[in-house]
Amino acid sequence: MTEFVCAECGRESDNSSGFDRCVCGGPLEYLSLIRRGSRISLDTGCLLIDFSDFLPPLRYDSSVSLGEGRTPLISCEGPELEGFKVLLKNETVNPTWSFKDRGTYLTLLDAIKRGFSRFGTVSTGNMAASVAAYGARAGLDTSVLVSADIPDEKIRPITVYGPRVARVKGDYSDLFYKSIGSASSWGVYFSNSDVSMRVEGSKTIAFEIFLQLGEKVPDYVIVPTSSGGNIRGIEKGFRELREARLTERTPTMIAVQASGCSPIHQAFQNGRESVERFHNPSTIAHAIENPLPPSGNSVLKMLRRNGGTTIAVDEEDIIQAQQRLALRGFFVQPASATSLAAIEKLKKLGSLNGSTVVSILTGSGLKYPSALDKHPAQVIDVSIDSLDSLFR
Amino acid sequence: MTEFVCAECGRESDNSSGFDRCVCGGPLEYLSLIRRGSRISLDTGCLLIDFSDFLPPLRYDSSVSLGEGRTPLISCEGPELEGFKVLLKNETVNPTWSFKDRGTYLTLLDAIKRGFSRFGTVSTGNMAASVAAYGARAGLDTSVLVSADIPDEKIRPITVYGPRVARVKGDYSDLFYKSIGSASSWGVYFSNSDVSMRVEGSKTIAFEIFLQLGEKVPDYVIVPTSSGGNIRGIEKGFRELREARLTERTPTMIAVQASGCSPIHQAFQNGRESVERFHNPSTIAHAIENPLPPSGNSVLKMLRRNGGTTIAVDEEDIIQAQQRLALRGFFVQPASATSLAAIEKLKKLGSLNGSTVVSILTGSGLKYPSALDKHPAQVIDVSIDSLDSLFR
Repeated sequence: MTEFVCAECGRESDNSSGFDRCVCGGPLEYLSLIRRGSRISLDTGCLLIDFSDFLPPLRYDSSVSLGEGRTPLISCEGPELEGFKVLLKNETVNPTWSFKDRGTYLTLLDAIKRGFSRFGTVSTGNMAASVAAYGARAGLDTSVLVSADIPDEKIRPITVYGPRVARVKGDYSDLFYKSIGSASSWGVYFSNSDVSMRVEGSKTIAFEIFLQLGEKVPDYVIVPTSSGGNIRGIEKGFRELREARLTERTPTMIAVQASGCSPIHQAFQNGRESVERFHNPSTIAHAIENPLPPSGNSVLKMLRRNGGTTIAVDEEDIIQAQQRLALRGFFVQPASATSLAAIEKLKKLGSLNGSTVVSILTGSGLKYPSALDKHPAQVIDVSIDSLDSLFR
Repeated sequence: MTEFVCAECGRESDNSSGFDRCVCGGPLEYLSLIRRGSRISLDTGCLLIDFSDFLPPLRYDSSVSLGEGRTPLISCEGPELEGFKVLLKNETVNPTWSFKDRGTYLTLLDAIKRGFSRFGTVSTGNMAASVAAYGARAGLDTSVLVSADIPDEKIRPITVYGPRVARVKGDYSDLFYKSIGSASSWGVYFSNSDVSMRVEGSKTIAFEIFLQLGEKVPDYVIVPTSSGGNIRGIEKGFRELREARLTERTPTMIAVQASGCSPIHQAFQNGRESVERFHNPSTIAHAIENPLPPSGNSVLKMLRRNGGTTIAVDEEDIIQAQQRLALRGFFVQPASATSLAAIEKLKKLGSLNGSTVVSILTGSGLKYPSALDKHPAQVIDVSIDSLDSLFR
């Protein structure tokens, strides 16, 4: 039975190998069976129940859920945002404080359904923490493969969940593909960044936005983009809402990358059909620093079909956007701040006038404390008896 | 018009000074007008709308909300938890990753209603970040007073939101009272730990638990306790549900403190009516290290009326509980881990058999990265070609 389709070449597949990759190398995508009359709600707050008409037939299991999803969509105002409406989808309030938890939960249920007792991922950041936490929750033997040069600041919030952590010497992209293909030999379900069930998890961001806007879609959705799995999932979610006739149109998708590592942006702007490895990547937006995104080609194809585009933002703009978001109450990691930086750049181009723009805040600022060094702390010293002078 | 009552001596007051303190020194509590037929729901996800029958008449304003509350209640299992049911109320998924955001939102609305353009708090941790974020969100002139010895690790996640931060030399408790009484002279609304509207905010934790349990109350609610404002609010919430006849009984409240700073526990166990300053406090649970809790006496009184109790837990037990929670997918700050440590201690006493226990996870583990030093990280080094050896 065909249940998957390659997001890159369109070939159908039964994914019998469980590798989630097409023979062409592209990522297999779950072929949702959308019926007219399918519906979604926010009734229970459980993704798998509220959105079951649109998700794969995984069995809801509260004993392995951590309460992922159901995040706020909050308006954001400011002088540089005049002339259009900006809404922030705050994914930093997920159980491990990033959007990754949605996809991790679905891959975990899929792993359990398929009889795996071993769970893992290749990541140094948000996904590693998320997979470690959910693996711990479900009592699976969980492994996280990280690159050999990972700093201590990043590894401890992963190890605290108790997974097996291996620092792996060698090419990181090789590791990504080798691990995905490893299930049969090692018996490990690798919940990597663009596997099909993780992409299904990201769809739920689209469903929530649609409901939170009163069953409407925004004009634009801006997504900080690394591997490409998240933006693919969000776009797929909106597309399926249209297939179910719940909406007539879908939003324009905008993939934002840091100029210091922008392989998808470079390929898109140069009209290429495939991404090339980005050499010497360097950006403060570590969480989206992926020089050879596994879903890169699929994102290019998706953006062209969708009428979307890409944008790259510079380091200084990312840092300033991080600060500007914090000055409005949202402390996000630098990678998430790229979406505000992108909005500001698009505004200058006049692209957003009169529109509704949703920007995805992918992960918490607490994830990356050393980025705070970029924001000098102004602190005054006073004595308790001279407080009057402070407030006069 | 009487709208407030002292939680300590029972005197009624119109709180005309706006100080939120009784002439006896006790904290004034908002006198809720509970009507029979009052109801609560989780319909909109906005605290002030869903729970309006039970909250002060503050005007809901989405432009200053950050999407606080509506946190998951998640079951937790483990060999040491057999014989009773444990549910974790995960407050770490609030907008600034602690329970403080509920109360901060209500105090902010109160400040705006009363015409303040200046907002502030006295805190070095969760509350400071929360007040800084909400003050920024609302565009108020926001001040955070911290003690002079605050480490850099704690101050930067506050300064990022852009408040005026003053390190104040002098006694910290004096600062607490001096700041609350300062509104008239300085024109600053101080959203301190046990002001009346903050306590109203904590009530919403009780309302959510009640609804998440299918309109039932648990047998016990365990709350890591510092100033005492949060446990007072949660108990008040359950009590008001009973007044509205939505429940016949209320849960038994358990205040947990660290043995290294346990003024409420000491007073309660010694049968005293007032807390005494705890000398030389020292605990890894910084967020509840308050040697002279301003709501201490009111908590003692509340616990005796409620049939509740106190418990103190040792450093090693806190650290182990933090690890054990992480090994189940919940990475909390040490102060929050005291509640699991308390459960384990209560279990040994046989107190919990057959009961339903809700434990409040007050703040994220990311708030206090250096506590991770207590949990040695086990990391293996492998090469990409020897991964087989890892999984064999």
